[in-house]
Amino acid sequence: MNAASVRAHIDVGAVEHNLAQIRQRLGASRARIWATVKSDAYGHGLMRVLPGLAAADGLAVQTLHEARLCRTAGWAGPILVYGGVRGPDEAALLDLPGLHLVISHAAQLGWLQAAARPAHPPAIWLRYVGDTYMGGFDDQDYAQAHEGCVALQAQGRIADIGHLNHYARAEDADGIATADARFRQAVAGRSGPVSTCNSAALLQHPGHVAQSDWVRPGILLYGVSPLSDIDGPGLGLRPVMRLTACVHAVQTLPQGASLGYRAAFTAPTTMRVGLVGCGYADGYPRHAGTGTPLLVDGQPTRLLGRPTMDTLAVDLTHLETAGPSAPVVLWGDPLATAEAVATAAGTIAAELLTGLTPRVAVSVG
Amino acid sequence: MNAASVRAHIDVGAVEHNLAQIRQRLGASRARIWATVKSDAYGHGLMRVLPGLAAADGLAVQTLHEARLCRTAGWAGPILVYGGVRGPDEAALLDLPGLHLVISHAAQLGWLQAAARPAHPPAIWLRYVGDTYMGGFDDQDYAQAHEGCVALQAQGRIADIGHLNHYARAEDADGIATADARFRQAVAGRSGPVSTCNSAALLQHPGHVAQSDWVRPGILLYGVSPLSDIDGPGLGLRPVMRLTACVHAVQTLPQGASLGYRAAFTAPTTMRVGLVGCGYADGYPRHAGTGTPLLVDGQPTRLLGRPTMDTLAVDLTHLETAGPSAPVVLWGDPLATAEAVATAAGTIAAELLTGLTPRVAVSVG
Repeated sequence: MNAASVRAHIDVGAVEHNLAQIRQRLGASRARIWATVKSDAYGHGLMRVLPGLAAADGLAVQTLHEARLCRTAGWAGPILVYGGVRGPDEAALLDLPGLHLVISHAAQLGWLQAAARPAHPPAIWLRYVGDTYMGGFDDQDYAQAHEGCVALQAQGRIADIGHLNHYARAEDADGIATADARFRQAVAGRSGPVSTCNSAALLQHPGHVAQSDWVRPGILLYGVSPLSDIDGPGLGLRPVMRLTACVHAVQTLPQGASLGYRAAFTAPTTMRVGLVGCGYADGYPRHAGTGTPLLVDGQPTRLLGRPTMDTLAVDLTHLETAGPSAPVVLWGDPLATAEAVATAAGTIAAELLTGLTPRVAVSVG
Repeated sequence: MNAASVRAHIDVGAVEHNLAQIRQRLGASRARIWATVKSDAYGHGLMRVLPGLAAADGLAVQTLHEARLCRTAGWAGPILVYGGVRGPDEAALLDLPGLHLVISHAAQLGWLQAAARPAHPPAIWLRYVGDTYMGGFDDQDYAQAHEGCVALQAQGRIADIGHLNHYARAEDADGIATADARFRQAVAGRSGPVSTCNSAALLQHPGHVAQSDWVRPGILLYGVSPLSDIDGPGLGLRPVMRLTACVHAVQTLPQGASLGYRAAFTAPTTMRVGLVGCGYADGYPRHAGTGTPLLVDGQPTRLLGRPTMDTLAVDLTHLETAGPSAPVVLWGDPLATAEAVATAAGTIAAELLTGLTPRVAVSVG
């Protein structure tokens, strides 16, 4: 791998630190933590981050395939599978102990009913439709689904039955009160543990944590804030991924000359521009434009123009000593966070972190 | 791999068809074709598409590593390396016959000078800075770089010396005249072949092709148009990548209820919504919003709201028979092209094609 390539360095110590910070925020509450590692640990690599999550109470993944990977890696604790079972074939293959399946629609209960009784009956988390409507049972169907679960439980096909909700606007100060009231009403009178609270809810609604048996932080584990007014380092977190590349050439951009396709940037004065071998084919967002923060030689500077498939341009006008082979931090530094790059690109950091392509070399430490 | 997963099917026959279409557009011109397969063949997989490119005159890649992969796959013809040599180490390892190196800055000539004389001296293409300023020599430096090349050639370190330019606005009717005149002036009086014309230039400036010895189509090979007013199928091309998934659940969205984070879509009337196991962690763009085209059960419909990490919602209100496990085409169909999805997401199709993550299963045929 040439020095000109894009590299992602994964800091496992930061994962451990961030989990400890989350635990501290839970305070005196007895809420347990599902550490969310779906989407290959938000793009950081499931296998790479697991050593930093030994203190989690459970892991949360999207698929049974990911759950198996956790077991293969030696994780012996509970595993929550957001996608539950995705068909009769998966219901027939529940051969892992300690599974917790999120059930979001009625067909899944039918598959569990039709399958052979599993050696290790999974715990079930019924998902309430909440205020997202991206899966889950509405008020009417929730009661019926719960009855179905009770029947499955009586047959020894499933273990405990819990109740799960997800908020659409947890980052708002008034974002969960109404949604939570509806959820509590839907599950009222039914026994079993309750799981609410993603990262944003943990930060914005700490008083609510005491009413949840299991919380489900995701992006915070990776040192990234879900809130627009503060970043991960501001929350005492450490970025887990550091994306780097290096300057491979320096170009003079004459006053009035334009840079890149469609004249994406025009120089107001003669400028010194560094070319960096990173582009949207690495997963760096093409929506990022002039002004997106990054570091060259450890100094803050900015993107110029628009990234192409393989190359982006950086402003070296005020960094006179930065030349070819100067190191570039694209994100993962307090002065150039993934949050800041995402904001510049009109998206959220999770899209950047999960969006790296196989062309990026990954190291871990 | 579960049926609920996202899959990319690569149609090698379409690559062959598209290359033949490009050849036809070149008409009576004797321009040869560098088939651009950088960035892992624009995300389609270099090894997968090579069998469809047997009729190309040469392949164009970004790195020497990619050039080696082409040789490993049995490609015996010329290979153009856009990134040239990226350091002294690469200059010392020019062990492949048939290499053509693009030289964009002076240090590269120094590395070639310092390295041992290669067994197979590479051809050189000097890149003019053009109107992009993303690498290349300006008017003043071009002459000096050319002299340097002539000296290297006399020492047997390099073979032929060619001249290469790239246009910033080839898709505009008036996009290349000025830029080309400047290029021709810079190279005037110097012998050697000339390479200009990316896909957009081939379409918009067919008269210009006759003045180029080698043209460099990229996105057209993959069945995608670089022009905003016509798509690949409209140009007689066939999309090479077809991205598919399936509906895993159907949800009723009551009138006035909102879908997803931040209430990304609110139902004007009670609607039937399909949930599809594809999200931005697969590489589907989070910028795509309500109205982005896709197919369910072969019928055109639209995205609703905003894709999450793992899930997107589709409108099934008028597709009454489409239920769980209905097939979804996300792009790669004349009724839902990658161009149309890219436009909906405020970007270009090349970003989508090169942006799939390792979570997507790929098949070829």
